[in-house]
Amino acid sequence: MQDTYVSIHLQRIHPLPLYQQLYQQLKEAIQSGRLASGSKMCPIRRLAEHLGVNTVTVVQAYRALERDGLVSSQVGRGTFVCAPTEITGASSWPDSTVQRMEIQADSWQVPVSPQAINFATLTPAAELFPVDDFQSIINQVLDRDRGQAFGYQESQGYYPLRCSVAEYLAQRGIICDAESIQVISGAQQGIDIIARSLLSGGDRVMTESPTYTGALASFRALGAHVIAVPLQSDGIDIDALKHRLKLHQPKLLYVMTNYQNPTGICYSVAKQQALLEICRQEGVVLIEDDSFTELAYDGSERRAIKEWDEDNRVIYIKSFSKILMPGLRLAFMLAPQHLQLRLMAAKHIADISTSGLLQRAFDLYLRQRLWKGHLEYMQKCYRDRYQQTIRAMQISFPPQADFSAPGGGLCIWVKGHPELSTDRLYQSCLANGVVIAPGSHFFPDKRDSNFFRLSFAALSEDTISQGIPIIARQLQLLDNSSPKTRRRFSPLL
Amino acid sequence: MQDTYVSIHLQRIHPLPLYQQLYQQLKEAIQSGRLASGSKMCPIRRLAEHLGVNTVTVVQAYRALERDGLVSSQVGRGTFVCAPTEITGASSWPDSTVQRMEIQADSWQVPVSPQAINFATLTPAAELFPVDDFQSIINQVLDRDRGQAFGYQESQGYYPLRCSVAEYLAQRGIICDAESIQVISGAQQGIDIIARSLLSGGDRVMTESPTYTGALASFRALGAHVIAVPLQSDGIDIDALKHRLKLHQPKLLYVMTNYQNPTGICYSVAKQQALLEICRQEGVVLIEDDSFTELAYDGSERRAIKEWDEDNRVIYIKSFSKILMPGLRLAFMLAPQHLQLRLMAAKHIADISTSGLLQRAFDLYLRQRLWKGHLEYMQKCYRDRYQQTIRAMQISFPPQADFSAPGGGLCIWVKGHPELSTDRLYQSCLANGVVIAPGSHFFPDKRDSNFFRLSFAALSEDTISQGIPIIARQLQLLDNSSPKTRRRFSPLL
Repeated sequence: MQDTYVSIHLQRIHPLPLYQQLYQQLKEAIQSGRLASGSKMCPIRRLAEHLGVNTVTVVQAYRALERDGLVSSQVGRGTFVCAPTEITGASSWPDSTVQRMEIQADSWQVPVSPQAINFATLTPAAELFPVDDFQSIINQVLDRDRGQAFGYQESQGYYPLRCSVAEYLAQRGIICDAESIQVISGAQQGIDIIARSLLSGGDRVMTESPTYTGALASFRALGAHVIAVPLQSDGIDIDALKHRLKLHQPKLLYVMTNYQNPTGICYSVAKQQALLEICRQEGVVLIEDDSFTELAYDGSERRAIKEWDEDNRVIYIKSFSKILMPGLRLAFMLAPQHLQLRLMAAKHIADISTSGLLQRAFDLYLRQRLWKGHLEYMQKCYRDRYQQTIRAMQISFPPQADFSAPGGGLCIWVKGHPELSTDRLYQSCLANGVVIAPGSHFFPDKRDSNFFRLSFAALSEDTISQGIPIIARQLQLLDNSSPKTRRRFSPLL
Repeated sequence: MQDTYVSIHLQRIHPLPLYQQLYQQLKEAIQSGRLASGSKMCPIRRLAEHLGVNTVTVVQAYRALERDGLVSSQVGRGTFVCAPTEITGASSWPDSTVQRMEIQADSWQVPVSPQAINFATLTPAAELFPVDDFQSIINQVLDRDRGQAFGYQESQGYYPLRCSVAEYLAQRGIICDAESIQVISGAQQGIDIIARSLLSGGDRVMTESPTYTGALASFRALGAHVIAVPLQSDGIDIDALKHRLKLHQPKLLYVMTNYQNPTGICYSVAKQQALLEICRQEGVVLIEDDSFTELAYDGSERRAIKEWDEDNRVIYIKSFSKILMPGLRLAFMLAPQHLQLRLMAAKHIADISTSGLLQRAFDLYLRQRLWKGHLEYMQKCYRDRYQQTIRAMQISFPPQADFSAPGGGLCIWVKGHPELSTDRLYQSCLANGVVIAPGSHFFPDKRDSNFFRLSFAALSEDTISQGIPIIARQLQLLDNSSPKTRRRFSPLL
């Protein structure tokens, strides 16, 4: 069998993750016949070194090809291009494919076996959704509004829902009127609409480091440069922020102030106020993403920067996905008056309006006070899962793995020993049926990392008890092999 | 009372329509006190001349201010800034406001009284939606899928729905597999995602002239230059297209091949094939928007360019809004393989995924063959309304108003005498309780126009019979006053 050469070009600044770029190019090479059937694919490590990417990138690309029936792997021999007769058309994909390609709540996409214990996703398990209540609500809306429920809504959002949301916010100490609320199809759309309204290619935008991957994807797709500012235990590093604001003059600053994704960090009130004051002085638009605040498990009352924002400078985004149901695709934002029309125009261009039926249903759900009961239920479920996770980690994790208990939210952020590659940890956990989110995905400015994120949102307490020791074991194995690791990897942290 | 001067800056290339820019700037001037309470607003015609805009732009801005309670108009005296005590907060807006600000299906936004006879909207009347069937379907989905119906869907779309759509397309003569289908939240999102994936600022994009306003808004928001190509009665002007393709080398060409919005024109098969061949030769990506094809009232079978697209170069967009329900926000597109991953990434950045519940419901609606029955019902309703409209127009319209019966779709395109300003016709119809869509909105390259669009989608046959003679009367009045008109307006067509 002769060697085959295929030219691969990967771009780090690109809307698609590296593994999808690689997958796409290899797929084309196979389908065009440039990679002949029967040929052996380049060994994973060799290809990774050649391309200057992590092995996990190549593994993901090969897995995607295997899923398409384009390659098959043989234990101990390697991965081979399938003969054309072996290539399975999409129409005959097994049903499990659908589940395997489900998208993660935080834009971190990876094909995952439905049997795997998934600590990577932030999507609550389906059995927690208030299906019966919501079914009843939808029927009430349809009985009440009939065909009106299916017409176009105004782009700003269904007016009674905006009133309900304003009332909800007032209970949180955020005073606004329905006119300043923009309904959006999820927090991701909110970030994207803001970015499109305010950024042009080459503009600078500032984020916490690490941060939410969906925000990074949106900013980068617009050709913006992302400037990273480190997080401290009580919020963004104010000195670093001041320095970089002066140096880079970004147009936007994106932060998540409570139970931040991925670190679980909460801002102190002092830091919230300091941050607001700096943004005011420097004239930078602050986006506050407030999707986890209600998920406090220790009874603490968390504040939002928006509460101090008397002259209305902060764009505040609130999603209900983590508490109600992500599949509704419903969230809202509150924006300074001078930006409202611009944001509404961007919303209109993006999708005209959010589904009227779902807006009406969510409005009635809020009006019937079902939200509060469900929130308490979710707080209890998540608290149990959170406590179980922390307990299991305290028992089984090796001492080199450092983490603190955030007291709320859905993320636990773990720091391994300085030379740990969590891309490699991800891979070895995956081989043992457990999925984690390696830190490299969350840093705007790093390629590998010794951090990783665990979430318990989708897992029962039993599954958590099974899964955490598996991660602990892989951490130990990688710790023991660290001299070898040191020779092969050059950690970037 | 002294004169007040306020500086106004309007930009023609801007995501917001001119009237909204004007509205926003005047609103700020009033709220900041620069326009003092009690002051008289500049007369409409004078302000329009001063700003170089149509009077309708100023009228719309003043109406929006009046709706906000910021100004009030007094018959024969003019428009005045209200005293602060008169200013009504948004929270006390009357309920009718909600209806008045409903967004038109074709992005053409204007505040409309709910009592007005609306020939401008393409949104079917709410009583035509199959509410009972759909309610039953939603309940079946929730009983079957429970919480799964509310989880995230994969960005490409719910797999069984993609299979159903592929089957639906096969009946239309378009052969594809589920893998090539991307579910989107409405045709507008499809156009926007394509534009974002393929265009950068300064790129050129080509459209029919006139064309769908939402596509223009999307292309312009990205900073693309729109090149207009005239339409003929059997489709785009091929000679002009060839010439302009060579001259401008656009990246994209956007067309609507059957019952085009706003003209109602259908492409001949010969022109469909010629257009495809030209795009193939010149390497330009063709977007075919196919939202009206099923709405043939004369039994004719319309073809799509996508049917001839054997090497899969056309991006085909199909919405169900005009036949099922616009408020679902559900459509799909079919794209060349090399673009699929890029489009999916753009979809993911835009809103992660389309509502899983609505995707599952529409899938079941297709699988239970409810679609076909509803389509036949809608064809019948629309045919009756269409025939009533054409009949009434034939009876009452003056001979200078020229139109042809498109035989399908939802748009009737009318050409007035060469010196008619349809912006002015819009205004005089509005004053008489009837709304039309003036042609200026649909031309990428013209400011006023002697064309206008009528649609019967939202109107009963009785209402059509009442409304058409009112438009006819205004046409006659403007015809009679044309010498005066000639002095005041310089038509651009």
